[in-house]
Amino acid sequence: MAPEALIQATYRIDAQPDEAERIARFIAYEQTVELPQAQVTDRRILDDIVGTVLSLEPADGGCFHARIAFNAALAAGQLSTLINLVYGNVSMYPGIRLQALQLPVSLLARFEGPRFGVAGLRALLDVHDRPLLATAIKPVGTPVERLAQLAHDFALGGGDIVKDDQNLVSDDFDAFRFRIEACSNAVQRANRSTGGNTLYFPHLAAAHGELPRYAEFVRGIGLHGALLCPHIIGHDHARDLAARFDLVYMAHPALSGALTQAGDNGIEFGLALGTLLRVGGADISVFVAPGGRFRFSDAQALSLMQACREPLGNLAPAWPCPAGGMDYDRIAALCEVYGNDTVLLVGGALLGHDTDLARATRAYLDRIRSAIA
Amino acid sequence: MAPEALIQATYRIDAQPDEAERIARFIAYEQTVELPQAQVTDRRILDDIVGTVLSLEPADGGCFHARIAFNAALAAGQLSTLINLVYGNVSMYPGIRLQALQLPVSLLARFEGPRFGVAGLRALLDVHDRPLLATAIKPVGTPVERLAQLAHDFALGGGDIVKDDQNLVSDDFDAFRFRIEACSNAVQRANRSTGGNTLYFPHLAAAHGELPRYAEFVRGIGLHGALLCPHIIGHDHARDLAARFDLVYMAHPALSGALTQAGDNGIEFGLALGTLLRVGGADISVFVAPGGRFRFSDAQALSLMQACREPLGNLAPAWPCPAGGMDYDRIAALCEVYGNDTVLLVGGALLGHDTDLARATRAYLDRIRSAIA
Repeated sequence: MAPEALIQATYRIDAQPDEAERIARFIAYEQTVELPQAQVTDRRILDDIVGTVLSLEPADGGCFHARIAFNAALAAGQLSTLINLVYGNVSMYPGIRLQALQLPVSLLARFEGPRFGVAGLRALLDVHDRPLLATAIKPVGTPVERLAQLAHDFALGGGDIVKDDQNLVSDDFDAFRFRIEACSNAVQRANRSTGGNTLYFPHLAAAHGELPRYAEFVRGIGLHGALLCPHIIGHDHARDLAARFDLVYMAHPALSGALTQAGDNGIEFGLALGTLLRVGGADISVFVAPGGRFRFSDAQALSLMQACREPLGNLAPAWPCPAGGMDYDRIAALCEVYGNDTVLLVGGALLGHDTDLARATRAYLDRIRSAIA
Repeated sequence: MAPEALIQATYRIDAQPDEAERIARFIAYEQTVELPQAQVTDRRILDDIVGTVLSLEPADGGCFHARIAFNAALAAGQLSTLINLVYGNVSMYPGIRLQALQLPVSLLARFEGPRFGVAGLRALLDVHDRPLLATAIKPVGTPVERLAQLAHDFALGGGDIVKDDQNLVSDDFDAFRFRIEACSNAVQRANRSTGGNTLYFPHLAAAHGELPRYAEFVRGIGLHGALLCPHIIGHDHARDLAARFDLVYMAHPALSGALTQAGDNGIEFGLALGTLLRVGGADISVFVAPGGRFRFSDAQALSLMQACREPLGNLAPAWPCPAGGMDYDRIAALCEVYGNDTVLLVGGALLGHDTDLARATRAYLDRIRSAIA
């Protein structure tokens, strides 16, 4: 099959040398025909459907990297089917991790990718030359007036994006509407006073059938984006909501640790939170930054940054959005590491810096501006 | 807070004794207010919102089990929010596994659970006294006439449920309709000839916005159920599709290994593939059985069986559906281990037993009947 018709997936196989080759072939069959090799005799199915083991190389830690080619037509141009094809069944087999993925341009062309991406979000904000500053309003249980006040003060300080904490969930539509209108109005009031364009992104969470109504409401009152949890509600579902209602899609990593945390299982960090989210239309990928209260590595962060930015068919680049451990004193270093096309998500550290949130926001923005000067 | 208003979640924490208590408290804060403890001073939020560490006990392998209570109102009666509440953020923290979950009746009452369950599926099939026999038609790439023939022959042999392989995916609606009609007609023809009630469950896979049309079509031509991949399309999405179109919901475990495979991370097997699926409305939970080509343990299978059957508010029991390694000679033993209210999913082994699929199906059914006699 011509290379432009092939998906190339690289798996890390944790096995003895004599087992690794058998497991590589097992993956090629399991992810396609899902039959024992002896039962597949039809020439056309062997040629066009069964995966092909392209290479098997020793890798770190006594493991092997198996590169396997799949007919891209098996993904049917569908995000859910692509995920199933490259990691559905073998997720259940011990010691197999999806390490890398090369998607052909023919398949990438079936996906819209980030609708806003770097350029579109910069245009909405009219901010062109620096990393963006974002915060989350929380905690759940806080009176709506207080949440609105936090959103207002961040906007008054000139912050770029204020989002709901992903634990902020309303019981019903009326409660959602009340909360979102209050926060949206507060941000608009601050924007009128500053002449700025701070964006407010509510978290869309509700029973499945209700979500379109929530998204429509958010867009209807003039908001431009939303926070979604694709690892919980489904990647293709999040993609569809953002596309249908023309929303900037900020992806929250809740539950993604199940994919990324185990070294010998799951999906590589940058692939899970970068490439696959970008194919799925995410404009901003929130991730836990090294140095915060979780223990992520610099290598993971770099992998995600690269996945958000590297060429990927005609898909726009997405924004990496490190969160956690964003202390004031680290801002200059973070700007250098992550570069300009980054959203810095500062939560507790912002309020910890100055109890006046508008002043804290200004101080952080000044720090960002001087860092890149 | 009264016990009937609390979710109790037990986490396995892989840490030194002096760290375990700190991590348990971290979970209680991270999953609710998502703020450092020093920043939460509001009495009402400390009392009503922050989780409570109920106990911390040493467990196997030098680990600890922390039992944490959450205010059930934080789940907002939503499946996605419940998953987020009990494991969203801490999935990203190393060495924390969700081990057990006790859901209060007040929260369970917000979910319909399995619409058919054991009794409803038995009524559809008019089979009341034995484990059910299911198979999958495959592989992808097989001409539709051949897939329809396989479905026909299994029905002719008196099998109970024939489902699509989860890799059977159509590029567009017309191709889907053509394939599903052919297989459905073939099963109906066989049913007329046997007087039986074999059910055909297509796999619903398409771009998100298309899926309701696919489900409506399936129900519209008189089919009673579908195969769905909740770990890929989202648990609440699968629940919604099945409920909206009144379909028996057969849950495929694709991608679930990311949750269940790592011992120190993710979600316990029976909880991930039993309890949470049952809350999410699954009537049948397909899982990889011990003894097959994957390496699952008897303990995992028993945990899932128990989760499908134990009391869970007013939710109906679901069917455990072991798949893989279902050799003819093991059927009697499998019937004894799994009990009557089980779907035995036999794939390759059925065709391996006899190239005449109707005859192979009859032989398996005879074996099941004699095993339980």
